[in-house]
This record gives sequence, C-alpha cells and structure tokens, in this order.
Amino acid sequence: MNLTIYNTLTRKKEVFKPINEPNVGLYVCGPTVYGDPHLGHARPAITFDILFRLLKHLDYKVRYVRNVTDVGHLESDADEGEDKIAKKARLDQLEPMEIAQRYTIRYHDAMKMLNTLPPSIEPRASGHIIEQIELIKKILKNGFAYESNGSIYFDVEKYHEKYNYGKLSGRVIEDMISSTRKLDGQDEKRNSIDFALWKKANPEHIMRWPSPWSIGFPGWHLECSAMSTKYLGEPFDIHGGGMDLVFPHHECEIAQSVAANGKEAVRYWMHNNMITINGQKMGKSLGNFITLEELFEGNHKMLTQAYSPMTIKLFILQAHYRSTLDFSNEALQAAEKGLSRLFAAARLLTKIKPSANSTVNVNELWEKAYTALCDDLNSPIALATIFDWVRIINSLSEGKETITQADLKTLKSTFNTLVFDILGLANEQLADTKHTNLAGNLMEMILNIRLQAKANKDFATSDKIRDDLAKLGVTVKDRKDGFDWEI
Amino acid sequence: MNLTIYNTLTRKKEVFKPINEPNVGLYVCGPTVYGDPHLGHARPAITFDILFRLLKHLDYKVRYVRNVTDVGHLESDADEGEDKIAKKARLDQLEPMEIAQRYTIRYHDAMKMLNTLPPSIEPRASGHIIEQIELIKKILKNGFAYESNGSIYFDVEKYHEKYNYGKLSGRVIEDMISSTRKLDGQDEKRNSIDFALWKKANPEHIMRWPSPWSIGFPGWHLECSAMSTKYLGEPFDIHGGGMDLVFPHHECEIAQSVAANGKEAVRYWMHNNMITINGQKMGKSLGNFITLEELFEGNHKMLTQAYSPMTIKLFILQAHYRSTLDFSNEALQAAEKGLSRLFAAARLLTKIKPSANSTVNVNELWEKAYTALCDDLNSPIALATIFDWVRIINSLSEGKETITQADLKTLKSTFNTLVFDILGLANEQLADTKHTNLAGNLMEMILNIRLQAKANKDFATSDKIRDDLAKLGVTVKDRKDGFDWEI
Repeated sequence: MNLTIYNTLTRKKEVFKPINEPNVGLYVCGPTVYGDPHLGHARPAITFDILFRLLKHLDYKVRYVRNVTDVGHLESDADEGEDKIAKKARLDQLEPMEIAQRYTIRYHDAMKMLNTLPPSIEPRASGHIIEQIELIKKILKNGFAYESNGSIYFDVEKYHEKYNYGKLSGRVIEDMISSTRKLDGQDEKRNSIDFALWKKANPEHIMRWPSPWSIGFPGWHLECSAMSTKYLGEPFDIHGGGMDLVFPHHECEIAQSVAANGKEAVRYWMHNNMITINGQKMGKSLGNFITLEELFEGNHKMLTQAYSPMTIKLFILQAHYRSTLDFSNEALQAAEKGLSRLFAAARLLTKIKPSANSTVNVNELWEKAYTALCDDLNSPIALATIFDWVRIINSLSEGKETITQADLKTLKSTFNTLVFDILGLANEQLADTKHTNLAGNLMEMILNIRLQAKANKDFATSDKIRDDLAKLGVTVKDRKDGFDWEI
Repeated sequence: MNLTIYNTLTRKKEVFKPINEPNVGLYVCGPTVYGDPHLGHARPAITFDILFRLLKHLDYKVRYVRNVTDVGHLESDADEGEDKIAKKARLDQLEPMEIAQRYTIRYHDAMKMLNTLPPSIEPRASGHIIEQIELIKKILKNGFAYESNGSIYFDVEKYHEKYNYGKLSGRVIEDMISSTRKLDGQDEKRNSIDFALWKKANPEHIMRWPSPWSIGFPGWHLECSAMSTKYLGEPFDIHGGGMDLVFPHHECEIAQSVAANGKEAVRYWMHNNMITINGQKMGKSLGNFITLEELFEGNHKMLTQAYSPMTIKLFILQAHYRSTLDFSNEALQAAEKGLSRLFAAARLLTKIKPSANSTVNVNELWEKAYTALCDDLNSPIALATIFDWVRIINSLSEGKETITQADLKTLKSTFNTLVFDILGLANEQLADTKHTNLAGNLMEMILNIRLQAKANKDFATSDKIRDDLAKLGVTVKDRKDGFDWEI
C-alpha cells in the first residue's frame, strides 16, 4: 500500500518514499512548556501519533523526535519581549526549569491520557545549546548572519539574493519588507525581517550560556534545525507541526539549514490545521483556549459537560487534519455518542456466533479504511467506514446478517487493528485493571441474580436491581442469549 | 519540631538548619537510564520522597533536583569501558537518546506507581555539557587537573596535598595509591586514582561534543557538581543518594567543588543503605536484580507472587533508610498483610461513631510518629506507632474503646496526614476512579441483596452470594452495623 502525504512545500499530495528505507525520520514541533496543555496541543499530537502508528504498521522503522521548547521562545513569537518560560517563572517565583518541569509533566500526562505514543526522542532546547552554537558558526561562516551588539541575526535579504526565503509559506519577501516599519539606527537588526539566532542576555535574564559572541541564549527557530538533524541526519523524511508554525518558524528553519549546508534538511513538510472557537484560532496567546484538564473535568464556562480523552480524540479524528475544526459542545457530544457505539460494537464482536455462510464482505472494511488512512491520513473517511461496520456488527449480533468463523476472525482482527492499533482509541470502559475486572464480574453476578429473580417470578427484586443499576448510570439490555450492559 | 539528619560527612545526627530559610535545596542522584528500574532504584526514590514530603510539611519551600544520567557513565563505574547507554544502544541498534528516552519513561512510570512526587527539576547530563566544560576550566585554572591526549583528569594527589580527598568515604588516599597497580607510560592518567573530567571520544563513540580540548564527553562525576549548583546555588542544603555512591562518586563531587571554588557545595550528605538478596547488594551490574515491573507482575523466578507498588513501599519503609534491607517473599508478604490492615483501618475510620468521652489519647499518634519521622526519617518507629493505632481503630470500631467527636476528627486528620501525605502511601483499593467507584457501588448493592435474602430466610441465595464473592477474592465481614469487605 502506498502512503501519500500532502507536502506543504510542493502544495500537492506526494507518494511517500523514505530516504533510507526501511528507516523513517519524523520530527514534530512540540510544546513550549509554560502553561497547561490545551485542545490546540491535542491536535498535532494526535495527528502525528496516527502517522507514527501508520508508518510502523507499514513496517517502517520509525524514529519519531518531538522537542520540548524550554528556552528561547519569546512572548512576541519574534525577537522581542520576555522569554515565555522566564516570564512565567518570574510570576510564580520559581526557577525557569521548575516551570519547564511542571508543564512538561502535565503535557506528558495529558498525552498519555489521549493514548498517544511517546516519541522515540524528546530533546530539550536548553539541552542543545552547543549544537545551536555550532550551527550559528556555520551560518556566520557562510555569510548569512551578522553580529550586532553581542547578538547574531540571520540576514534574510542576503539569503534571499541567493535562495528563496518564503518558499514554504508563499510569502513574498518584498511585500514583507515594505509592510514593516523602517528600523532606525537604534535597532540591532539591519532589517525588521531578520531573525535572531543568538540573543545577548540582559543582566536580569536567568537562562544564559557562554558563546563566542556573548553570554546569552539561542533564538527560537534554531533549536528545531539543530535537534532534528542531530537525531535524524540530514536530510530527513518528515517534519510536522501546526499550520501556525509555517511562518515564521518553519520558513526560518529552511533558511537556517540552507544557509548552513547549502541544502534543505526536510523532504516532506506536513501541517495540521487549527482548532477554532467561533471561527478564531484557539491558542494560549489569544486567551481563548480550553485546557485538556478542563475538558476532561468539564470545568470551563464554555463546556456543558466533561468529555473523556477518547471523546476528544474521536472529535479530532472526525475531521481531516488539514481542515479547520470548530469547537462546540454539540460536536463533542456527537463524538461521545459515536465512541460509545464504537466500543459497544467492539464488545458485541466478542460475542457474535459464527454461521455456515457470510452475508457480509469483511474485506471491505480494511480496504476502504486503510486506503483512506494511507491517503494523506484521511481519518474521517476511515471512521465513516468503521461506523458502517458498527451498524453491520449490530446486525450480525441481532442475527440479521451472518458471518463464517473465518470471516469473523478477520473482522475482529481488522476492526481492532484499525480502531485500537492505528487510530489509537483506547477502550476506556474496558481498561484492563483490577477494579474494572471486579466491576465486570460483580455486574455479571448481579445480572445473574436478576435473571434468577425473574425466573422465580420475583419481579420486585428484579425491578429493584434494574432501578438501582440505573441510578449508577448502568443500562441493562436484555438480549436473546442473555444480557449486555453499558455505563 | 526540629528535624535531625544523619550527615555522612560528620558521621553524626545534626539538627537541620537551612542555609536560606525558608528555602531548602535538595539534590538526589537519579538513575542511569539504560535498563528497567528495579528494586534498588525504589529505595532512594522512596527515601528522598519522604524527606521531600516531610520538609514541605515542615513549611519549607523545597526545590528538589534529581538528575537523569544519559551520558558519561562508563561500564566500570570508573573511567574505563564503554558508556553504559551507548553500549545498550549498540546492542539494540538504536540511537543512544532513544535508549535514554525509553528508560526515562519507564523510570517515571514506575516512580508514579510508587506514588513518589516528581522532583522540581530533572536535569539531564547531556543537556548540561556547557556547564560541565565551564567547571573543568575552573579546575584546570586552579591547577587541580591536567590534560592528557585530549582528555582531562583530576589530579587527586595534588588536591590531597592541600585538601582532604577521602573525607566523605573515610578512605585513606595513601592506601588507595599503594593498593592500585602502578601505571605504565601508556596510560593517560598520572595516577590510577585520578578520575576523568573530560574524555576524548573514540571515532566510533556516538555521543560527542566539542570542547577546548577535544571532541568528547564529560566524566560521570562532573554532571552532579555542575547541575546541583546550577539549580540550587552554592552551597546548598542536602545531597542524597545510595550508599554505593559515597565512593567514588560523591567523594569526587566534593573534590571537584573544592578544587573549582575553594569550598564545599553541600551542607548535609545523606545516604540510603542497600537492598540485598541473600546478603549481596542488588544491582544491575551484579545481575541479581528484580525489576519493579517483575515485582508488580510477579514475573521472576525468585518471586512466589506479585506485589503491589504500595506493598513494596511499605516493605521499604519498615526498615530505617540507613539499614540494609534484605529481600524475601516472606517480608513482602508481611508488608502486604500490614498494608491491607492499614487500609482497612482507614476505611473503618470513616465509619466510627463518636461517643461522649474518649478512652484513647489521640495526641499520642501524632507525637510519637511525627517525632520519629523528624528523627532522621525513622519510618519503622513511625509505622509501629501507626500500627498500634490500627489496633485501636479496630477496637473503636468494635465499641471496645470510645472517642469523642473532636478526638475523632483529630484522629482522622492525623492518621491521613501521616499515612497518605507524609509517607505517601496511596490507597490502591480506594483509588478514585470511575470503575473503582462502580465496583464499590455494585458491592454495596450485592451485599444489600444478600442482607435482604437473609432477612427473608432465603439462605440459599445469601450463601450463593457469599460463595460467588469468595471466588472473586472478596471477603465479606459481617459487622454489628452492617458489613465490610476487602479484596
């Protein structure tokens, strides 16, 4: 099966061909760890988790690198303002690395709840200062950067004379220059579109390292260029991130690599679209975000209820990653209902009795859903197919359709591979813990007591059991061959 | 309440006095991440977690730093052999940082299961190469190190002429010199007791950074000197670790700090003793270790059953941290029984009915147990007192002793603070999850059905329920005021 990927650089879908088959290098921009992870963080994490899982399913040996930005990301997302982490540290009266540790842990916890796999390597910007300094030296040596008052800036105009600054984002450098204010002599930069590679630290700046130019810290864009190629080689296969990073972050990454080595480092650029609220991008800097914890607990004024991690995951996967996705309680509630039907079908699947012949074509599920996923991660089409089969599984369970032993085995394996292995939806209700098992066993006991009571015409007891279970949020469904239950 | 700490350096218990009250700096040597966490890792993590919790309970503002060694720790624990992580990476055909990531995650997961709090900062050795290079420069400048073939070694004899090498471990340098083989001219070291600050990398060595002396990597002892003082200042309060680190690791740390700055960096040195199997230290390098996962799953030839994380925690806390602790199934089974009694008492405590007067002195629990913990973390004495109170709580529950409303409130608060907040024992049976609640609610339903059946003289049903529950491993205890159950 060929995997196709929409490459932001070429603006078209391309067949994916790894540089060093069977190895695949995947780099994804991770969080700047200065606040709680929110819905906007969930989307790239889930999108590239599906890609990671799919690549592994395609038998590639994948090295997935996702960074943690713990220094250098300034408030303005450009070269001005305070460092985001240092500012939070000042406000909370903590050491910046205490802030980074706290929010890295919270990010990891949330990503684990969303059942995304940890990346193979998780490099920190502050842990790769030497690599960043070495990269700056190369860019300086090649004449595409200049020193100014102890800081080093990338010379965009000079770079653009030889190469193409704007090729990823489609921005036109001439427009950018004319639209930004002229710099007076006070500014360190020669041109406002130049960006920092190294910033000399103010005396009060806590995060600082020695360099050939000053005691300072690296510019934000540099870490990804340095760390991706350190761990994935140069060039490497896929670089992912949110669409809001295309400019300036990824445009600057390309410029840095080309300026240092004369060639680009990345073969395929992939970008997930934004989650919006009322049409506006959700983000920490815009103040309109909902944290994942708030979503899991239903604790935010815009939420009418709590949503489980898998509900959020299904909500995200029901849109294609390159489409915008608008937050609404209605959409999340629909995802919650869908999830419940999906897991009910997974449970039914274990109970279906085979027949002598099949009235269904089990190969269809795999063919349609897997093909969709391999077509630039088309998860909405894959899910639509899976939900067609949820209906078929219900029909099989009710005896309206029949299936052979061999087909049933294929169906189970296909359904579970798609839902659990590749889409990474974990069955929250069936998690294999001691207490879940206990709850399941106790439920069977109670339902058997109820069956016995019914058999004895003791309807007072059987009705009381049904009512008590209803109070606990458990629905009992009587079936031909016994009963089924769900929370 | 005064906290006393046994200081390995002075070989006596001292009253703890922070350098910058109310701030306390605590540094603990963390894992070298090249293998699964084992029982030997659990002991320092639990010991210093109790210290962290106790210091916070004493209202100190604690910054707890625990490192992750991901480079520089060579096989021989001295300056020879392959890097432990690089070797594992070579065997597994992975990038060293993939090894570090995998085992850091497994360590974190295990530490979370043991309900230890994450440290405030978790610096990685590979992320602090610059800081280590700067420290080497200082030591070189002060004349206590020398370059040899691109590597830098600490000059122990020269240091010992002015200072005292061996003061922490009590080793006599003259004996060490005479007992080690004479170095021939081929060796880079002037003296075999010298230790590496920087090692020039062989061409095949993957982890390598530029330095003023060579492309190479730092010596193992250096990271802790550099990172502890970076994040805690100099001097700082407490440095902890396993007793096997006293020499050479911590002895070298002292020498490095004194050689660089003319003064020691640490006020109190604390060391936990070893876990032994048949009297021999348990450790990865000795090959006689049991991983925490094996313990949790009962999956090792030396284990007769699985042990829960809290069983292991109680087993460790029942010995004083400075005593050796011998592994045995019998001791772990005893801890399991004790834990079950402890949690049963915690549950009973919520059901006890107050009386007009108290026949018990509730202040005794806090006074004895807290005093013991503040006396160099005497957890066995604290636990003995707590278990005295488990018996008293049972007596209160059975009406053999009585307690007033006010005393009951004090008792609950004291018991919970000691058991859950300071000792950090989490109630696995009562963990607040959806399914645990469901299991608890279903259990109540079943027991009520059984009570009703008994009231109706339907002993067939009530006996069947009891037998079915027994099959699930649930024991039902009939009590005066209803029933209680445990798994």
